[in-house]
Amino acid sequence: MTQTLKPSKTIGIVGLGLIGGSLGLALQKVGYNVHGLTHRSITAARAKKRGLANLISTNHEILQNCSTVILALPLNQLLNPNQNLIDALPINATITDVGSVKEPIVKIWKNLHPKFVGSHPMAGTSQSGVEAGEVNLFNGKAWVTTPDSSTDIEALQTVRELAVDLGCHWISANPADHDQAVALISHLPVLVSAALLKTADNEKSESISNLARALASSGFADTTRIGGGNAELGLSMMANNTEAIIYFLNSYQETLKEFKDTISSKDWNSLRNKLEKTHEIRPDFLNN
Amino acid sequence: MTQTLKPSKTIGIVGLGLIGGSLGLALQKVGYNVHGLTHRSITAARAKKRGLANLISTNHEILQNCSTVILALPLNQLLNPNQNLIDALPINATITDVGSVKEPIVKIWKNLHPKFVGSHPMAGTSQSGVEAGEVNLFNGKAWVTTPDSSTDIEALQTVRELAVDLGCHWISANPADHDQAVALISHLPVLVSAALLKTADNEKSESISNLARALASSGFADTTRIGGGNAELGLSMMANNTEAIIYFLNSYQETLKEFKDTISSKDWNSLRNKLEKTHEIRPDFLNN
Repeated sequence: MTQTLKPSKTIGIVGLGLIGGSLGLALQKVGYNVHGLTHRSITAARAKKRGLANLISTNHEILQNCSTVILALPLNQLLNPNQNLIDALPINATITDVGSVKEPIVKIWKNLHPKFVGSHPMAGTSQSGVEAGEVNLFNGKAWVTTPDSSTDIEALQTVRELAVDLGCHWISANPADHDQAVALISHLPVLVSAALLKTADNEKSESISNLARALASSGFADTTRIGGGNAELGLSMMANNTEAIIYFLNSYQETLKEFKDTISSKDWNSLRNKLEKTHEIRPDFLNN
Repeated sequence: MTQTLKPSKTIGIVGLGLIGGSLGLALQKVGYNVHGLTHRSITAARAKKRGLANLISTNHEILQNCSTVILALPLNQLLNPNQNLIDALPINATITDVGSVKEPIVKIWKNLHPKFVGSHPMAGTSQSGVEAGEVNLFNGKAWVTTPDSSTDIEALQTVRELAVDLGCHWISANPADHDQAVALISHLPVLVSAALLKTADNEKSESISNLARALASSGFADTTRIGGGNAELGLSMMANNTEAIIYFLNSYQETLKEFKDTISSKDWNSLRNKLEKTHEIRPDFLNN
């Protein structure tokens, strides 16, 4: 993380949950002046106690002098933005967001603000809320921006600089490609993992069911981590990236059927080849 | 872990890989005298250097004075045991194993030794081989024994005591129930996870494929951990617990189809219920 102080720049963050709170802590650490906007006064009080921003308020006026504003809100609020929020965004400020689906967000926001740039910082934990923010959440992670032909180049450059200041490796992709890629490596895994938990829970024999619960160890814990996560987050992925998710879910079902057919036919050489292949390719997906 | 010294008891361990090596380190720590048998002299030399047992040899005679012998061998060697090994096991010793599938092992070994007790210590890492053993691998984990009606009660008691000495919580189940339960919480997850890696690798568009690799983060890493593990271990599970695995794989496919139908029909209330349910049940499987 760069330690250069940037006292002239004031960044506004709308929403101080896991992502907004982590951004607030990290941006202050690298020298930005941070203004945090939250909806409820109880959240504002807790955010102040945690020092998530230099200045925290429930009043939209706090965004007035910000040169950049990050909308760290849940997907449904990004897709149905509050008019008071839209009105409060300075016309010359760079506006970005943190939503995990980009095409619908970019489509809406390009008409709401001339300097909007879609962003998706690829970080998260199982925690949420005002107590969840962590100063190092973004360090070393990917930060994707999703410009289209109408995106303001200076605004894009501003977001890129901010991502790099946070220690992220910056990636740029068009919104549709981003949504396809995350359907594959982020949204599909949620379903695959949730269905595993549901299958385990469906077991009717009480003795097997109890034994399964007693014996489940790290392998089961790892594979079910994201399927047992925040339901609203999972729902917002599925509801806003439906087509891409169904596409990869079909592909997954075919692949799983191939595995089953190989096992049913006891073709152990073919199964060995498949498992050696998955062992071999996994490191390609662990660059972060 | 109990710290009582038990100098009168000599435990033999056959095989000094991850499981055998970890047992050797842990059993010495709680005061047992450990004799380790390995197949190759190069492994014996490395095991000696790491102190995996008090005495290490490639000669079966090392098992002669052991009151208990743990067969820490891969499944295929447990299912096709070497005659020299069978002949070297003291007739009065308690014999146990560490195989992850129990019904076929118990079926063979109950006819090979009068004091055989099937065991499955539920621990592992992604490592294997003589350098992989860790002294604390078993601490706090489940150790399952799988007696049947012909099992020697004293031998069962001996294995139980050993498991408790290692800090494990001891569970006893019949071999068939064990194999059903691990098919569900250990073997099915390997396939679910491997199929996810294969699906990601199958993506034909180069831009989406590259972006997916660049963006894959902790969620994808967790969900694919066991599907990208040791191929021979995965293969030995599938080949020796085929029926139970196919049964749960069918159940999983049905569950996944239900998730897909819910998403395709955009029934978000039902999807929310499903995801809230998986969130709620996951802690039941995390007792270890």
